[in-house]
Amino acid sequence: MEAATEFLRKKGLASAEKKASRAAKEGIIETYIHTGAKLGIMVEVNCETDFVAKRPEFKELAKAVAMQIAACPTVEAIKEEDIPAGWVEQESRIEAASEDLQGKPDNIVEKIVAGRVQKAMKAKLLLEQPYIRDTSMNVDEFVKSYVAKLGENIKVARFVRFNVGGGTEDAEEEE
Amino acid sequence: MEAATEFLRKKGLASAEKKASRAAKEGIIETYIHTGAKLGIMVEVNCETDFVAKRPEFKELAKAVAMQIAACPTVEAIKEEDIPAGWVEQESRIEAASEDLQGKPDNIVEKIVAGRVQKAMKAKLLLEQPYIRDTSMNVDEFVKSYVAKLGENIKVARFVRFNVGGGTEDAEEEE
Repeated sequence: MEAATEFLRKKGLASAEKKASRAAKEGIIETYIHTGAKLGIMVEVNCETDFVAKRPEFKELAKAVAMQIAACPTVEAIKEEDIPAGWVEQESRIEAASEDLQGKPDNIVEKIVAGRVQKAMKAKLLLEQPYIRDTSMNVDEFVKSYVAKLGENIKVARFVRFNVGGGTEDAEEEE
Repeated sequence: MEAATEFLRKKGLASAEKKASRAAKEGIIETYIHTGAKLGIMVEVNCETDFVAKRPEFKELAKAVAMQIAACPTVEAIKEEDIPAGWVEQESRIEAASEDLQGKPDNIVEKIVAGRVQKAMKAKLLLEQPYIRDTSMNVDEFVKSYVAKLGENIKVARFVRFNVGGGTEDAEEEE
Protein backbone atom coordinates (compact mmCIF):
# COMPACT_ATOMS: atom_id res chain seq x y z
CA MET A 1 0.00 0.00 0.00
CA GLU A 2 1.31 3.48 -0.84
CA ALA A 3 2.23 5.89 1.93
CA ALA A 4 -0.63 8.30 1.13
CA THR A 5 -3.22 5.52 1.14
CA GLU A 6 -1.76 4.16 4.34
CA PHE A 7 -1.96 7.62 5.92
CA LEU A 8 -5.61 8.03 4.90
CA ARG A 9 -6.41 4.53 6.11
CA LYS A 10 -4.90 5.22 9.54
CA LYS A 11 -6.69 8.56 9.70
CA GLY A 12 -9.94 6.75 8.89
CA LEU A 13 -9.33 4.18 11.62
CA ALA A 14 -8.56 6.88 14.20
CA SER A 15 -11.77 8.68 13.27
CA ALA A 16 -13.66 5.36 13.44
CA GLU A 17 -12.37 4.78 16.98
CA LYS A 18 -13.79 8.15 18.02
CA LYS A 19 -17.21 7.34 16.57
CA ALA A 20 -17.28 3.86 18.15
CA SER A 21 -18.72 5.19 21.40
CA ARG A 22 -21.79 6.72 19.73
CA ALA A 23 -25.05 4.79 19.91
CA ALA A 24 -25.83 2.71 16.82
CA LYS A 25 -29.50 1.75 17.06
CA GLU A 26 -30.61 2.09 13.46
CA GLY A 27 -29.56 -0.16 10.63
CA ILE A 28 -30.67 -2.91 8.31
CA ILE A 29 -31.05 -6.65 8.01
CA GLU A 30 -29.30 -8.17 5.01
CA THR A 31 -28.99 -11.73 3.76
CA TYR A 32 -26.78 -13.74 1.46
CA ILE A 33 -27.86 -17.05 -0.02
CA HIS A 34 -25.03 -18.99 -1.60
CA THR A 35 -25.55 -20.53 -5.05
CA GLY A 36 -27.61 -23.70 -4.68
CA ALA A 37 -29.42 -22.30 -1.61
CA LYS A 38 -27.80 -24.83 0.76
CA LEU A 39 -26.21 -22.05 2.82
CA GLY A 40 -27.78 -18.81 4.00
CA ILE A 41 -26.52 -15.96 6.15
CA MET A 42 -28.59 -13.25 7.80
CA VAL A 43 -26.88 -10.28 9.37
CA GLU A 44 -27.89 -7.14 11.26
CA VAL A 45 -25.67 -4.10 10.78
CA ASN A 46 -26.29 -1.01 12.88
CA CYS A 47 -25.57 2.65 12.33
CA GLU A 48 -26.72 5.84 14.05
CA THR A 49 -29.44 7.23 11.78
CA ASP A 50 -32.01 5.89 9.37
CA PHE A 51 -30.56 8.30 6.81
CA VAL A 52 -27.33 6.31 6.70
CA ALA A 53 -29.22 3.00 7.00
CA LYS A 54 -30.96 3.86 3.70
CA ARG A 55 -27.77 4.64 1.80
CA PRO A 56 -26.79 2.14 -0.91
CA GLU A 57 -23.22 2.03 0.46
CA PHE A 58 -24.55 0.80 3.78
CA LYS A 59 -26.47 -1.99 2.08
CA GLU A 60 -23.34 -2.82 0.10
CA LEU A 61 -21.39 -3.10 3.37
CA ALA A 62 -24.03 -5.37 4.94
CA LYS A 63 -24.05 -7.60 1.85
CA ALA A 64 -20.24 -7.84 1.89
CA VAL A 65 -20.31 -8.82 5.58
CA ALA A 66 -22.91 -11.52 4.88
CA MET A 67 -20.79 -12.90 2.02
CA GLN A 68 -17.71 -12.81 4.24
CA ILE A 69 -19.49 -14.96 6.86
CA ALA A 70 -20.54 -17.41 4.14
CA ALA A 71 -16.90 -17.69 3.09
CA CYS A 72 -15.65 -18.29 6.65
CA PRO A 73 -17.18 -21.48 8.07
CA THR A 74 -15.05 -21.28 11.25
CA VAL A 75 -16.50 -17.92 12.23
CA GLU A 76 -18.85 -18.25 15.19
CA ALA A 77 -18.83 -14.82 16.80
CA ILE A 78 -18.30 -11.18 16.00
CA LYS A 79 -15.55 -10.28 18.45
CA GLU A 80 -13.62 -11.75 21.38
CA GLU A 81 -16.10 -10.46 24.00
CA ASP A 82 -18.81 -12.65 22.41
CA ILE A 83 -16.93 -15.90 23.05
CA PRO A 84 -18.39 -17.60 26.14
CA ALA A 85 -16.44 -17.06 29.36
CA GLY A 86 -14.45 -20.16 30.17
CA TRP A 87 -13.72 -21.07 26.57
CA VAL A 88 -10.09 -19.88 26.82
CA GLU A 89 -9.51 -21.84 30.05
CA GLN A 90 -11.09 -25.01 28.64
CA GLU A 91 -9.19 -24.76 25.36
CA SER A 92 -5.92 -24.06 27.22
CA ARG A 93 -6.38 -27.18 29.34
CA ILE A 94 -6.99 -29.30 26.23
CA GLU A 95 -3.99 -27.82 24.41
CA ALA A 96 -1.70 -28.27 27.43
CA ALA A 97 -2.51 -31.98 27.35
CA SER A 98 -1.35 -32.37 23.71
CA GLU A 99 1.16 -35.17 23.21
CA ASP A 100 3.79 -32.97 21.55
CA LEU A 101 4.03 -30.75 24.64
CA GLN A 102 4.67 -33.51 27.18
CA GLY A 103 8.06 -33.30 28.89
CA LYS A 104 8.65 -29.68 27.85
CA PRO A 105 9.37 -27.03 30.52
CA ASP A 106 6.27 -25.31 31.94
CA ASN A 107 7.13 -21.83 30.71
CA ILE A 108 7.61 -23.12 27.15
CA VAL A 109 4.34 -25.09 27.29
CA GLU A 110 2.57 -21.98 28.55
CA LYS A 111 3.79 -19.89 25.62
CA ILE A 112 2.96 -22.53 23.00
CA VAL A 113 -0.50 -23.10 24.50
CA ALA A 114 -1.25 -19.37 24.58
CA GLY A 115 -0.23 -19.09 20.93
CA ARG A 116 -2.41 -21.99 19.84
CA VAL A 117 -5.43 -20.81 21.80
CA GLN A 118 -5.01 -17.31 20.36
CA LYS A 119 -4.96 -18.78 16.86
CA ALA A 120 -8.09 -20.88 17.50
CA MET A 121 -9.83 -17.83 18.94
CA LYS A 122 -8.96 -15.71 15.91
CA ALA A 123 -10.46 -18.30 13.55
CA LYS A 124 -13.80 -17.90 15.36
CA LEU A 125 -14.02 -14.11 15.12
CA LEU A 126 -15.61 -12.33 12.18
CA LEU A 127 -13.81 -9.02 12.71
CA GLU A 128 -10.40 -10.76 12.76
CA GLN A 129 -10.76 -12.44 9.37
CA PRO A 130 -8.86 -11.12 6.35
CA TYR A 131 -11.46 -9.37 4.20
CA ILE A 132 -12.16 -11.75 1.31
CA ARG A 133 -12.01 -9.09 -1.43
CA ASP A 134 -8.91 -7.32 -0.11
CA THR A 135 -6.82 -9.41 2.23
CA SER A 136 -4.56 -6.46 3.08
CA MET A 137 -7.16 -5.55 5.70
CA ASN A 138 -9.27 -7.50 8.16
CA VAL A 139 -13.06 -7.29 8.43
CA ASP A 140 -12.82 -4.84 11.33
CA GLU A 141 -10.79 -2.45 9.16
CA PHE A 142 -13.16 -3.02 6.24
CA VAL A 143 -16.15 -2.04 8.42
CA LYS A 144 -14.25 0.99 9.74
CA SER A 145 -13.57 2.14 6.17
CA TYR A 146 -17.36 2.58 5.95
CA VAL A 147 -17.39 4.48 9.24
CA ALA A 148 -15.04 6.95 7.57
CA LYS A 149 -17.09 6.97 4.37
CA LEU A 150 -20.53 7.38 5.99
CA GLY A 151 -19.55 9.42 9.04
CA GLU A 152 -21.35 7.33 11.63
CA ASN A 153 -20.55 4.61 14.13
CA ILE A 154 -21.26 1.25 12.42
CA LYS A 155 -21.46 -2.13 14.11
CA VAL A 156 -22.10 -5.67 12.97
CA ALA A 157 -24.72 -6.52 15.62
CA ARG A 158 -25.39 -10.21 15.01
CA PHE A 159 -25.57 -12.91 12.39
CA VAL A 160 -26.96 -16.37 11.88
CA ARG A 161 -25.82 -19.09 9.48
CA PHE A 162 -28.15 -21.82 8.21
CA ASN A 163 -26.83 -24.90 6.41
CA VAL A 164 -29.35 -27.33 4.94
CA GLY A 165 -29.54 -30.25 7.33
CA GLY A 166 -27.11 -28.60 9.73
CA GLY A 167 -27.53 -26.91 13.06
CA THR A 168 -27.65 -23.19 13.67
CA GLU A 169 -24.70 -21.15 14.68
CA ASP A 170 -25.51 -17.63 15.59
CA ALA A 171 -23.72 -14.74 17.11
CA GLU A 172 -25.06 -11.78 18.95
CA GLU A 173 -23.45 -8.80 20.45
CA GLU A 174 -24.38 -7.50 23.89
CA GLU A 175 -27.40 -9.69 24.51
CA MET B 1 -65.04 -24.43 -1.36
CA GLU B 2 -66.67 -26.73 -3.91
CA ALA B 3 -67.17 -30.41 -3.15
CA ALA B 4 -64.70 -31.56 -5.81
CA THR B 5 -61.99 -29.19 -4.58
CA GLU B 6 -62.67 -30.24 -1.00
CA PHE B 7 -62.38 -33.91 -2.03
CA LEU B 8 -59.04 -33.29 -3.77
CA ARG B 9 -57.80 -31.25 -0.83
CA LYS B 10 -58.61 -34.07 1.63
CA LYS B 11 -57.03 -36.62 -0.70
CA GLY B 12 -53.92 -34.45 -0.83
CA LEU B 13 -53.80 -34.20 2.96
CA ALA B 14 -54.18 -37.97 3.40
CA SER B 15 -51.37 -38.55 0.93
CA ALA B 16 -49.28 -35.95 2.76
CA GLU B 17 -49.77 -37.79 6.06
CA LYS B 18 -48.40 -40.97 4.45
CA LYS B 19 -45.31 -39.15 3.16
CA ALA B 20 -44.68 -37.45 6.50
CA SER B 21 -42.69 -40.41 7.84
CA ARG B 22 -40.15 -40.32 5.02
CA ALA B 23 -36.78 -38.69 5.71
CA ALA B 24 -36.49 -35.08 4.53
CA LYS B 25 -32.78 -34.21 4.55
CA GLU B 26 -32.47 -32.15 1.41
CA GLY B 27 -33.91 -28.69 0.90
CA ILE B 28 -33.09 -25.02 0.67
CA ILE B 29 -32.51 -21.90 2.70
CA GLU B 30 -34.73 -18.97 1.77
CA THR B 31 -35.02 -15.44 3.12
CA TYR B 32 -37.49 -12.62 3.11
CA ILE B 33 -36.51 -9.04 3.85
CA HIS B 34 -39.46 -6.77 4.45
CA THR B 35 -39.54 -3.36 2.73
CA GLY B 36 -37.22 -0.99 4.56
CA ALA B 37 -34.94 -3.87 5.64
CA LYS B 38 -35.84 -3.51 9.33
CA LEU B 39 -37.18 -7.07 9.46
CA GLY B 40 -35.65 -10.21 8.00
CA ILE B 41 -36.63 -13.85 8.07
CA MET B 42 -34.47 -16.84 7.20
CA VAL B 43 -36.05 -20.25 6.87
CA GLU B 44 -34.90 -23.81 6.10
CA VAL B 45 -37.38 -26.02 4.30
CA ASN B 46 -36.58 -29.69 3.80
CA CYS B 47 -37.65 -32.24 1.21
CA GLU B 48 -36.42 -35.72 0.29
CA THR B 49 -34.33 -35.16 -2.83
CA ASP B 50 -32.20 -32.42 -4.34
CA PHE B 51 -34.31 -32.80 -7.48
CA VAL B 52 -37.35 -31.42 -5.66
CA ALA B 53 -35.20 -28.90 -3.74
CA LYS B 54 -34.24 -27.38 -7.11
CA ARG B 55 -37.81 -27.03 -8.38
CA PRO B 56 -39.12 -23.45 -8.64
CA GLU B 57 -42.33 -24.48 -6.82
CA PHE B 58 -40.25 -25.52 -3.82
CA LYS B 59 -38.53 -22.13 -3.74
CA GLU B 60 -41.94 -20.49 -4.08
CA LEU B 61 -43.14 -22.46 -1.04
CA ALA B 62 -40.08 -21.49 1.02
CA LYS B 63 -40.54 -17.83 0.09
CA ALA B 64 -44.22 -17.95 1.06
CA VAL B 65 -43.34 -19.49 4.43
CA ALA B 66 -40.74 -16.77 5.08
CA MET B 67 -43.29 -14.06 4.22
CA GLN B 68 -45.85 -15.75 6.46
CA ILE B 69 -43.44 -15.59 9.42
CA ALA B 70 -42.78 -11.91 8.69
CA ALA B 71 -46.55 -11.30 8.83
CA CYS B 72 -46.99 -13.16 12.14
CA PRO B 73 -44.98 -11.46 14.88
CA THR B 74 -46.44 -13.75 17.57
CA VAL B 75 -45.05 -16.89 15.91
CA GLU B 76 -42.11 -18.33 17.88
CA ALA B 77 -42.07 -21.99 16.94
CA ILE B 78 -43.01 -24.35 14.14
CA LYS B 79 -45.28 -26.79 15.98
CA GLU B 80 -46.45 -27.64 19.50
CA GLU B 81 -43.58 -30.09 20.16
CA ASP B 82 -41.11 -27.22 19.78
CA ILE B 83 -42.57 -25.22 22.68
CA PRO B 84 -40.38 -25.74 25.77
CA ALA B 85 -41.67 -28.32 28.24
CA GLY B 86 -43.21 -26.56 31.21
CA TRP B 87 -44.61 -23.64 29.23
CA VAL B 88 -48.19 -24.99 29.41
CA GLU B 89 -47.95 -25.53 33.19
CA GLN B 90 -46.46 -22.09 33.78
CA GLU B 91 -48.99 -20.36 31.55
CA SER B 92 -51.88 -22.29 33.19
CA ARG B 93 -50.75 -21.15 36.63
CA ILE B 94 -50.63 -17.53 35.49
CA GLU B 95 -54.04 -17.76 33.81
CA ALA B 96 -55.64 -19.46 36.84
CA ALA B 97 -54.58 -16.47 38.94
CA SER B 98 -56.42 -13.97 36.69
CA GLU B 99 -58.77 -11.65 38.57
CA ASP B 100 -61.83 -12.51 36.48
CA LEU B 101 -61.61 -16.19 37.47
CA GLN B 102 -61.51 -15.69 41.23
CA GLY B 103 -64.50 -17.17 43.10
CA LYS B 104 -65.54 -19.37 40.16
CA PRO B 105 -65.93 -23.15 40.65
CA ASP B 106 -62.72 -25.14 40.00
CA ASN B 107 -64.06 -27.14 37.05
CA ILE B 108 -65.16 -23.94 35.28
CA VAL B 109 -61.80 -22.27 35.97
CA GLU B 110 -60.01 -25.33 34.60
CA LYS B 111 -61.97 -25.21 31.34
CA ILE B 112 -61.48 -21.48 30.84
CA VAL B 113 -57.76 -21.72 31.63
CA ALA B 114 -57.30 -24.62 29.20
CA GLY B 115 -59.06 -22.63 26.49
CA ARG B 116 -56.96 -19.53 27.04
CA VAL B 117 -53.68 -21.46 27.16
CA GLN B 118 -54.64 -23.31 23.97
CA LYS B 119 -55.30 -19.97 22.27
CA ALA B 120 -51.97 -18.51 23.44
CA MET B 121 -50.20 -21.67 22.24
CA LYS B 122 -51.82 -21.47 18.81
CA ALA B 123 -50.64 -17.87 18.36
CA LYS B 124 -47.04 -19.07 18.80
CA LEU B 125 -47.14 -21.84 16.19
CA LEU B 126 -46.32 -21.26 12.55
CA LEU B 127 -48.22 -24.28 11.22
CA GLU B 128 -51.41 -23.24 13.04
CA GLN B 129 -51.64 -19.77 11.49
CA PRO B 130 -54.20 -19.04 8.77
CA TYR B 131 -52.22 -18.85 5.53
CA ILE B 132 -51.96 -15.13 4.70
CA ARG B 133 -52.85 -15.48 1.01
CA ASP B 134 -55.73 -17.91 1.51
CA THR B 135 -57.15 -17.92 5.01
CA SER B 136 -59.41 -20.92 4.24
CA MET B 137 -56.39 -23.07 5.13
CA ASN B 138 -53.70 -22.94 7.78
CA VAL B 139 -49.95 -23.00 7.08
CA ASP B 140 -49.78 -26.74 7.77
CA GLU B 141 -52.37 -27.38 5.05
CA PHE B 142 -50.61 -24.94 2.73
CA VAL B 143 -47.32 -26.84 3.14
CA LYS B 144 -49.13 -30.15 2.61
CA SER B 145 -50.61 -28.87 -0.65
CA TYR B 146 -46.98 -28.79 -1.87
CA VAL B 147 -46.40 -32.33 -0.60
CA ALA B 148 -49.24 -33.36 -2.92
CA LYS B 149 -47.87 -31.20 -5.75
CA LEU B 150 -44.22 -32.29 -5.48
CA GLY B 151 -44.71 -35.88 -4.28
CA GLU B 152 -42.27 -35.73 -1.37
CA ASN B 153 -42.34 -35.25 2.38
CA ILE B 154 -41.76 -31.53 3.05
CA LYS B 155 -40.98 -29.94 6.41
CA VAL B 156 -40.32 -26.45 7.65
CA ALA B 157 -37.18 -27.26 9.63
CA ARG B 158 -36.36 -23.96 11.36
CA PHE B 159 -36.52 -20.21 11.04
CA VAL B 160 -35.02 -17.10 12.55
CA ARG B 161 -36.41 -13.57 12.68
CA PHE B 162 -34.21 -10.49 12.98
CA ASN B 163 -35.64 -7.07 13.83
CA VAL B 164 -33.31 -4.08 13.73
CA GLY B 165 -32.42 -3.31 17.34
CA GLY B 166 -34.44 -6.27 18.57
CA GLY B 167 -33.48 -9.65 19.92
CA THR B 168 -33.46 -12.92 18.03
CA GLU B 169 -36.28 -15.34 18.11
CA ASP B 170 -35.55 -18.60 16.41
CA ALA B 171 -37.22 -21.91 16.10
CA GLU B 172 -35.74 -25.27 15.36
CA GLU B 173 -37.24 -28.67 14.95
CA GLU B 174 -35.68 -31.78 16.45
CA GLU B 175 -32.40 -30.35 17.63
